[in-house]
Amino acid sequence: MKHAIIGSGAIGIFYGSLLVKAGEDVHFLLHSDYEYVKENGLKIDSKKLGNYSLDKVNAYDNTEKMPACDFVFVCLKTTENKRLLPKLLPPLLGNNTIVVLIQNGLGVEKDVAAMFPKIQIAGASAFISSNKIGPGHILHLDHGNLVIGNYNVQDLNRLEKLAEIFSIQKIRCSATEDLNKLRWRKLLWNIAFNGMTVVLNCQTDALMASPVLVNLSKQIMEEVILGAKACGVTLDENLPDEMIDYTSKMSAYSPSMKLDYDYKRPMEIHYIYDVPVAEANKNGYYMSKVDMLAQQLYFLEDQQRK
Amino acid sequence: MKHAIIGSGAIGIFYGSLLVKAGEDVHFLLHSDYEYVKENGLKIDSKKLGNYSLDKVNAYDNTEKMPACDFVFVCLKTTENKRLLPKLLPPLLGNNTIVVLIQNGLGVEKDVAAMFPKIQIAGASAFISSNKIGPGHILHLDHGNLVIGNYNVQDLNRLEKLAEIFSIQKIRCSATEDLNKLRWRKLLWNIAFNGMTVVLNCQTDALMASPVLVNLSKQIMEEVILGAKACGVTLDENLPDEMIDYTSKMSAYSPSMKLDYDYKRPMEIHYIYDVPVAEANKNGYYMSKVDMLAQQLYFLEDQQRK
Repeated sequence: MKHAIIGSGAIGIFYGSLLVKAGEDVHFLLHSDYEYVKENGLKIDSKKLGNYSLDKVNAYDNTEKMPACDFVFVCLKTTENKRLLPKLLPPLLGNNTIVVLIQNGLGVEKDVAAMFPKIQIAGASAFISSNKIGPGHILHLDHGNLVIGNYNVQDLNRLEKLAEIFSIQKIRCSATEDLNKLRWRKLLWNIAFNGMTVVLNCQTDALMASPVLVNLSKQIMEEVILGAKACGVTLDENLPDEMIDYTSKMSAYSPSMKLDYDYKRPMEIHYIYDVPVAEANKNGYYMSKVDMLAQQLYFLEDQQRK
Repeated sequence: MKHAIIGSGAIGIFYGSLLVKAGEDVHFLLHSDYEYVKENGLKIDSKKLGNYSLDKVNAYDNTEKMPACDFVFVCLKTTENKRLLPKLLPPLLGNNTIVVLIQNGLGVEKDVAAMFPKIQIAGASAFISSNKIGPGHILHLDHGNLVIGNYNVQDLNRLEKLAEIFSIQKIRCSATEDLNKLRWRKLLWNIAFNGMTVVLNCQTDALMASPVLVNLSKQIMEEVILGAKACGVTLDENLPDEMIDYTSKMSAYSPSMKLDYDYKRPMEIHYIYDVPVAEANKNGYYMSKVDMLAQQLYFLEDQQRK
């Protein structure tokens, strides 16, 4: 099967490399790393999978040169969807292409479906700690499971088959989850930790070392659970404790939004904060602290632009 | 009448200097500025009152050398009350002394009364923009009215008389307000702007230039109004708009908590945030955003200590 990877940050490179390892025909769209990757390929430093390199990959700087694919993986920041997808996607779409959005936040699929009303879309959440550390070079710190949720794909067997391909070594991929539930579950972590590390200018370890911030993080996650519930999604009430536990055991980590802020890139506030707040609101529950965090983030982004 | 000023920051110097101007017998307790003020007196730069100097003031470095007074004005940061008042107050207390706490926050009077069960206490809120800019030297930027609320003073005429003494030139002082209402009204501004300038590392002008932060500030003030209401205090619902208007017209200003944070001094989180949150909670209303702001402040203070 033919696969296209759009957006070659840590997520795109990692999951694209898994497909290559599985023997699939993978085509990478690159931007600033194009020349380097074309020459040198990709490099993944991973304790979990062992370090590995892909010396020769199909690298492109333009989707018009790429083939139509069975699967197109969108691994861009959601802040880029509106600007880039109308230009990037069309050359990759065949009659039966499935576009998989490995992105964060709520409501992304709906907005992409509005841009491309005829395509088949799935969403996916990557439960991974990884950072890009050089051109075509990523550090896979831990975890790595991928969960796919269907949006409007008709043949679910194709998603099941895809999940099998991704399940390599210690990485597990499933395609069975309810997309809405999957998105809300991932939001639990993202809403609490992405924004707070930006506003308080720290990494996750500092938050977890502070009883006050452990408490606040749990309060925020409890709000998200109530927000999800208002939207008809039941999340396990033990999740906040589990996520605190999980995050406490992680080494010092800068979530993607913290890196975006540090590197003066736009933050994914819209899909990670605004849409969940608006959806919960529409269904009668106001996530007060989440909304406050979003407003603080918009302020900081604005100050940075000045 | 004899007056003692405990705590010679911007508030203590300003209101002490008004008493001197009014011809009262005023005794200043100084700490780091003692030697300087003993030699050089006090200097107040004020557009509103005109600049003035008090070349010779009664300066002390120890309350044991000071006389018992009719009025003792406590102008310390509330963070110092517990540590300093047991030592500082006793020499100043006569049979009929009234201790006036010109301090911020809720519940301060109650805690001081618990330390000194027999004394008469009043609380006061200073509605003033002023900063200390050198030893014995303050800049009075704007406003300056003082409102006194009774805690357990028996002869209210004495507070009325005091208010008259303070009403000099364009400064107005009244002694008629319900203390609890006075404290909550001042909290409206302090809760919204003190903490937010610390967490977002900015001055008031940046907040007021941001529609997002104007909105968030109003939401926080609306929470405080509901918190006050739960505690039986009715504040005017137009106050948030009035305070936004007032703050927008102020020049760039660092509230006292921002200065405390910048200079690595303890912040008055307890009386400005914790006590109001706890009081409202006890009466059935949870000030969610206010509590979040408090938790962010505790985290930042803790990080700074490290």
